[in-house]
Amino acid sequence: MSSTALLNDSLANFTPDEFSPIRWRNGQLELLDQRQLPHRVEWLRYSNTCEVAQAITDMVVRGAPAIGITAAYGVVLSLINHQNALISGNNNSLQQDIQALAQSRPTAINLHWALDRMSALIERTEPEQLVSRLAKEAIAIHQQDIDFCHRIGQHGASLILEGSRVYTHCNAGALATGGHGTALGVIRTAFAQNKIAQVYAGETRPWFQGARLTSWELLEEGIPTFLVTEGAAGHTLKQNNVDWVIVGSDRIAADGSVANKIGTYNLAILARHHGCKVMVAAPSSTFDLSIQNGADIPIEQRPTEEVTHYKESAISASGVTAINPSFDVTPPDLVDVIVTERGIIHNPSTETIKAHFE
Amino acid sequence: MSSTALLNDSLANFTPDEFSPIRWRNGQLELLDQRQLPHRVEWLRYSNTCEVAQAITDMVVRGAPAIGITAAYGVVLSLINHQNALISGNNNSLQQDIQALAQSRPTAINLHWALDRMSALIERTEPEQLVSRLAKEAIAIHQQDIDFCHRIGQHGASLILEGSRVYTHCNAGALATGGHGTALGVIRTAFAQNKIAQVYAGETRPWFQGARLTSWELLEEGIPTFLVTEGAAGHTLKQNNVDWVIVGSDRIAADGSVANKIGTYNLAILARHHGCKVMVAAPSSTFDLSIQNGADIPIEQRPTEEVTHYKESAISASGVTAINPSFDVTPPDLVDVIVTERGIIHNPSTETIKAHFE
Repeated sequence: MSSTALLNDSLANFTPDEFSPIRWRNGQLELLDQRQLPHRVEWLRYSNTCEVAQAITDMVVRGAPAIGITAAYGVVLSLINHQNALISGNNNSLQQDIQALAQSRPTAINLHWALDRMSALIERTEPEQLVSRLAKEAIAIHQQDIDFCHRIGQHGASLILEGSRVYTHCNAGALATGGHGTALGVIRTAFAQNKIAQVYAGETRPWFQGARLTSWELLEEGIPTFLVTEGAAGHTLKQNNVDWVIVGSDRIAADGSVANKIGTYNLAILARHHGCKVMVAAPSSTFDLSIQNGADIPIEQRPTEEVTHYKESAISASGVTAINPSFDVTPPDLVDVIVTERGIIHNPSTETIKAHFE
Repeated sequence: MSSTALLNDSLANFTPDEFSPIRWRNGQLELLDQRQLPHRVEWLRYSNTCEVAQAITDMVVRGAPAIGITAAYGVVLSLINHQNALISGNNNSLQQDIQALAQSRPTAINLHWALDRMSALIERTEPEQLVSRLAKEAIAIHQQDIDFCHRIGQHGASLILEGSRVYTHCNAGALATGGHGTALGVIRTAFAQNKIAQVYAGETRPWFQGARLTSWELLEEGIPTFLVTEGAAGHTLKQNNVDWVIVGSDRIAADGSVANKIGTYNLAILARHHGCKVMVAAPSSTFDLSIQNGADIPIEQRPTEEVTHYKESAISASGVTAINPSFDVTPPDLVDVIVTERGIIHNPSTETIKAHFE
């Protein structure tokens, strides 16, 4: 049995225990095209790693944990495509592919975490075993992410009281992870425990992840959800005595500064103003302990057209320039808890985070 | 010369000294259809008052002062249409029309202010003189609004230092008034005084007034403007050391609570957090001294589809419900100054507002 056949065998036999936006079919990586959701469910197929990197840049797949998983499978595609070269000791093409994946989006650290994990194992693996061994590793990363989301859900839900109203932003759901979700994992678990009275989902301009993805996921689960514009956040927190803002993260610095979808920083300030607590739900792979504070987290600037246009249709006057940072950084003093698969970090700080990892 | 001819004569001879979204042409009221801007400049014609009321509800014309002016012209149309009945002592149809205008949108108080002013004059006017007299009054309301915007601009600009960065929300510009604008009147005047380094305009979901109208107005004037999503407000205030948030208002209570476009309350909280000052620019007709505090200002709830759809195209999954309050209320302790045509109210409160009107 060839290693490719073995690979496809192990990949084909992996079926996550719940919905996942990333899958392997017929020797190709398939990504659910999240740009088309919820109107069209279309799986795009990839057999080339540079195309996978472009798909991450183009936000076919998005959400820090999902990007990490996708990158791991992207490495597997590279190993398949450059198998002969690798066996003869030439790993240039593999390195180029890994580089392309690493540069596909700048803020989510899980991407680098997954690539580092794959690269470390490549170092330790015989060329002939690379494909089958690394395919198993990508599956392990995928399955682990789902398991971690469930643990995050349990830890986060333990903090939520019955009858709570929670506000979430962007999509930190099944679609942003291997399955279940981080922020939405907490909400799903808490809802199953009859603790959630109402969810408010910020629509999340300019990509509308809240409108298109989060409200869709929650509607499918029968979790009561109101969609709100970002401008209505303060009014909503005030009028409805919201208990928790619950969000995911793309990178967390050693001091607890949280990079997440643009609008998170607003929400944290508004939450503090209204006595509403802020929970960040993310796997421990989201921490970048090499970065001491939030100012050093690279923030992706995306094209003006994402704001000035809706699909191909111009909203603004021609010639208008938009500032379009994809993320912002929330300082740790505005975050009440960070929840990882390991447990709960109360009052995040350099010290409490260090203790969490000891 | 008939009174209608006289009317058309005085109305036709009125040309505001600058761009106005409301005008009289060939015996009809014309409104610039702001729903089509900036892509299409289309003037809609009205000869029936109920259609004018519907145009206000449908946001053909929007902005509190512009709604007031439109309502005044709407009364003139009613007087023309029911002239014979009025002369024979029957004012039922007129009252119905005024009622329809009064109910067209619930939050902007200028609407009621203009209708009250027109109604008071109707009481004092001989039936035969109604059309010509009230046409002159509508023109006076229109011209006065422009004059007041210029005075607001002068007062507001006097507070702005050279090199300032200012953030505005929604559209409180020429398009929202008789001309020149309130918040944008301040920005225009300050820019003419070389005080404005940069404007940030919030796009203003769900109607995109910032993207479609404000950035268009400012671009036309050559005022340097960046468009930003509401979610990016906190990040923008922080990264750019913004000096002033400058907004208009739809109604101000006796205690200084400011009802304005949804998202204003967020901005005021974010501004306070970043040491940025908040200026509300509005004619004194925006005050509703019969309302003691902000909780009593009626807040218009608009349809879910304005959030879940863009034009006819669905953004969200089918079945998603949005909360769509058109306005929020900012408490006076988050407002540094309210600027009217009369001058500046520092630290708005029941006392300082009372003094302003004495």
